[in-house]
Amino acid sequence: MALFVQKFGGTSVGTVERIEAVADRIVATRAQGHDLVVVLSAMSGETNRLIALAEQIQAQPTPRELDVLVSTGEQVTIALLCMALHKRGCEARSFTGTQVRILTDAAHTRARIREIDNQRIRAELDRGAVVVVAGFQGVDEHGNITTLGRGGSDTSAVALAAALKADECQIYTDVKGVYTTDPRVVDDARLLRTITFEEMLELASLGAKVLQIRSVEFAGKYKVPLRVLSSFEDDPGTLISLEENREMEAPIISGIAFTRDEAKVTVTGVPDVPGIAYKVLGPVSDAGIEVDVIVQNVAADGSTDITFTVKRQDVDQAQDIVSKVAAAIGAKSVSVDKKIAKVSLVGVGMRSHAGIASLMFKTLADEAINIQIITTSEIKISVVIDEKYLELAVRSLHSAFGLGGEAAAAAD
Amino acid sequence: MALFVQKFGGTSVGTVERIEAVADRIVATRAQGHDLVVVLSAMSGETNRLIALAEQIQAQPTPRELDVLVSTGEQVTIALLCMALHKRGCEARSFTGTQVRILTDAAHTRARIREIDNQRIRAELDRGAVVVVAGFQGVDEHGNITTLGRGGSDTSAVALAAALKADECQIYTDVKGVYTTDPRVVDDARLLRTITFEEMLELASLGAKVLQIRSVEFAGKYKVPLRVLSSFEDDPGTLISLEENREMEAPIISGIAFTRDEAKVTVTGVPDVPGIAYKVLGPVSDAGIEVDVIVQNVAADGSTDITFTVKRQDVDQAQDIVSKVAAAIGAKSVSVDKKIAKVSLVGVGMRSHAGIASLMFKTLADEAINIQIITTSEIKISVVIDEKYLELAVRSLHSAFGLGGEAAAAAD
Repeated sequence: MALFVQKFGGTSVGTVERIEAVADRIVATRAQGHDLVVVLSAMSGETNRLIALAEQIQAQPTPRELDVLVSTGEQVTIALLCMALHKRGCEARSFTGTQVRILTDAAHTRARIREIDNQRIRAELDRGAVVVVAGFQGVDEHGNITTLGRGGSDTSAVALAAALKADECQIYTDVKGVYTTDPRVVDDARLLRTITFEEMLELASLGAKVLQIRSVEFAGKYKVPLRVLSSFEDDPGTLISLEENREMEAPIISGIAFTRDEAKVTVTGVPDVPGIAYKVLGPVSDAGIEVDVIVQNVAADGSTDITFTVKRQDVDQAQDIVSKVAAAIGAKSVSVDKKIAKVSLVGVGMRSHAGIASLMFKTLADEAINIQIITTSEIKISVVIDEKYLELAVRSLHSAFGLGGEAAAAAD
Repeated sequence: MALFVQKFGGTSVGTVERIEAVADRIVATRAQGHDLVVVLSAMSGETNRLIALAEQIQAQPTPRELDVLVSTGEQVTIALLCMALHKRGCEARSFTGTQVRILTDAAHTRARIREIDNQRIRAELDRGAVVVVAGFQGVDEHGNITTLGRGGSDTSAVALAAALKADECQIYTDVKGVYTTDPRVVDDARLLRTITFEEMLELASLGAKVLQIRSVEFAGKYKVPLRVLSSFEDDPGTLISLEENREMEAPIISGIAFTRDEAKVTVTGVPDVPGIAYKVLGPVSDAGIEVDVIVQNVAADGSTDITFTVKRQDVDQAQDIVSKVAAAIGAKSVSVDKKIAKVSLVGVGMRSHAGIASLMFKTLADEAINIQIITTSEIKISVVIDEKYLELAVRSLHSAFGLGGEAAAAAD
C-alpha cells in the first residue's frame, strides 16, 4: 500500500463529465489499497475568466485581491470532485490552501511555499478518506490568501508529496508523458519510461512543455519521484526520478529538444578588451530581454565577435540596443538572423561517454546542415542551425542515436 | 463620525458596472468621515449557477462540499469591490468568513453564527481602511467553511453590526424601503421612515419581502438599528429600530400586508373531544406542510369545525391527509377553497388603541366584502377574504386608516 499525490490539471477537470472521470480513476486507485491526496487546478478557462473580470475594473489588479479572486477557481473544483467521490461511496474531503495550511511567503500572485502542516491531512488519510486539496494557492502567516503563479498546482502537488513523504507525485495531464522528441516531428518518437530530474529540466526548458520547471526543481530538491501521465488513457507515463534509480541499460541520450522561437544577433569587430561582453549584453538584460546562448570568439586581428540568441519577439528591440552600444565602442557591424532553430541532445549518459558530440556533428554534416553555434553543458549539447533544416536535423539525430524503435508503438 | 455596516445584495453587485457604482457610494460615505464595514452577496445568479453545477453531479450535494462550492460566490465579489475601491484611491481590504472568523455551528448550508472576532476588523478600521466582508459564510470551530442559508448575507451584516456595536446596519437592496402597503396595489402607498422590529417582523412574514426575517429578529435581539434603502437611489429609506425610539406622533397602523398564495381547508362536524385539533393537524405538520392561520369553533350540537390555511401549492396534499383523518375520526366533511387572500393590519399603536378592529370590519362591510376568518395578535389583525376582493380591501383599508397622503410622493 502506497501513498500517492495525484494532480489533475485544468483540462482534466474542465467539465462535470471530466470531473466524474477523474473520480472513477481515483476510486480505481483506492480499490488497489493506495492512500491518495489529490491536487486540483481550476476548470480550464476559469482562471482567465476571473482575471478578465478583474481587469475590467483595474488594469493592474491589486495582487492581494487578485489572489482572493482567482483562488475561488480551485475551490470550486475540489468541492465538485468530492461530491463525485461521495456519489461513488468514496470517503473524501476538500481543503483549501488556507485550511490545509500551505504556508507561503506574502508575495501575492507568485508566492513561494515555506511549509505545509501535514497533520490534518494525515488525520483524514488515517480515517480512510481521499484528501482533495486546492492547488495553486496557499496562505501567508497573517491568514491572507496567496497564489503560486501559473502552473502553481504542479508545485502544490510536489510540495504536498514532499511534506507527506509520498511514494510518488503523479501529474495527470493531457499528454502521455515525456517523449524522446516531439512526436509531431519524428514519427517514431518514443515515450520515455524513466528520466532524471536534470534531464527533465533540460528538456523542459528547451521546449518540451509538459511540466512546470519550478515543480521539477522542487521535486529534485526534495527527492520526490515524479510521474507524468495522461488523465485520458491508461498508461504509466514517464517517471522522473533520481539518477541513482535509473536502469543500467539506459540509453546515453534521453531526448532531443528543439525550439524555433529564437533569433540570433551577431556583433563583429568588437575591440577585445576586458569587460566588453558585459558592455554589449548588459544593456540587453537591463531592458528585461532574456539572453539564451552566448558565444564569443577572438579573431586573429585582436578584435572579437559576440553572438547571442534571444526570443524572436525581442530581437528588434535587442538589435536597437546593441546597435547603439556597437557605435559607442567602435564595433564593426551588427547583424540579425531570425531564421534559426536550436536543437539539443540531452542525456546524463553523455557525462561518461565520449564521441556524442562528434556523432552529432557527423550526422548533421551528412545531411549538409551547417552548424552556426555550438554550446555544451554536462548533460546537453546544443547547436543553432538554419530553421529550414530543423525537422531534418531532429529526425536524423533521433535515428542516429537510436531513440526510436520498439517502444515507439506505445507513443501514440 | 459613525460606524456603519452596509450590506449590498446580489442585484447591487450583479455586474462590474454595478460594483463600480457601489464603490462610488462607499467613497462618498467615506468622504463624510464615516467608518465602513461592507458585506456583500454573490453576483446575482452566481449561487444558482454553482448549485446547478453541484446538482449535475449529486442530486443531494454533500452539505459540507456545497458550502465550499457556493462560498466562492461572495469571495469573488469582495475581491472585485476592493479593486474598484483601490482604483478610486480608497484603502480597502477583503475578508472571507474564515479570515474574519465568523464562527458558526457546524450545520452546513444553514449554520448559525456563534461569535465574531472583531479584532482584525478593528485593526483595519483603525488604519483607515474600508473592510469588505463576504456575506452568507462563516467557519466552524474546526476550520470548515459554512454558509448561513438563503438571505444569510443580511444576517452576516447584522451580526457584524452587533459585534462592532455599529451605529447602523444598512441593507441596500433594489427597493426604496418599507411601504405602508404594496405600491403596485395602492397608488399612494407611503414609504415608512421608521418602523419597529416587531412591526417589521409581522410585515415581513406576511409577504413584504424586503428583509430576511431572521436578520430582523437578530437585529431586534441585539438592538442594532437596521435601515433598508435602495442602492440605485439617494434616499434614506426606512429605519427599523426599537419602539422606544419612535416619534410620538407615529400613526397607530404602520402598514397593510397581504398574501394571496394561501388556500383554506375546512373540516366540519369534528367530534369535540380533547386533542382533536392535534389529531387533525398533526399529520399535516408531519408531512412538512406549514400551517398558517388556524381557527376552531364549537357548534351547538357538540361537534366542532376546524379551518386552517396552508401555502396554495401544499393544499392538495393537505386535503388528502386531512380526508383520511376525517374518515377515521368520523368528521362530516372536508372542503378546500383556493381562492382566498389574507389581509393584515400591522402596528404597535393598536396595543393602546381600541376600535382598530371595528374600523377594519366596518370598512370591509361598507365594500360588501365578507370576512371568512379573523385572527388577531397584539400588533396585528388578519382577515381571510375572497381573493377577488383583495385589491379593493387593501385600498379601502389604506385610505380608512389614513396611511397614504403627503409623503406618498417620495414613494416612487
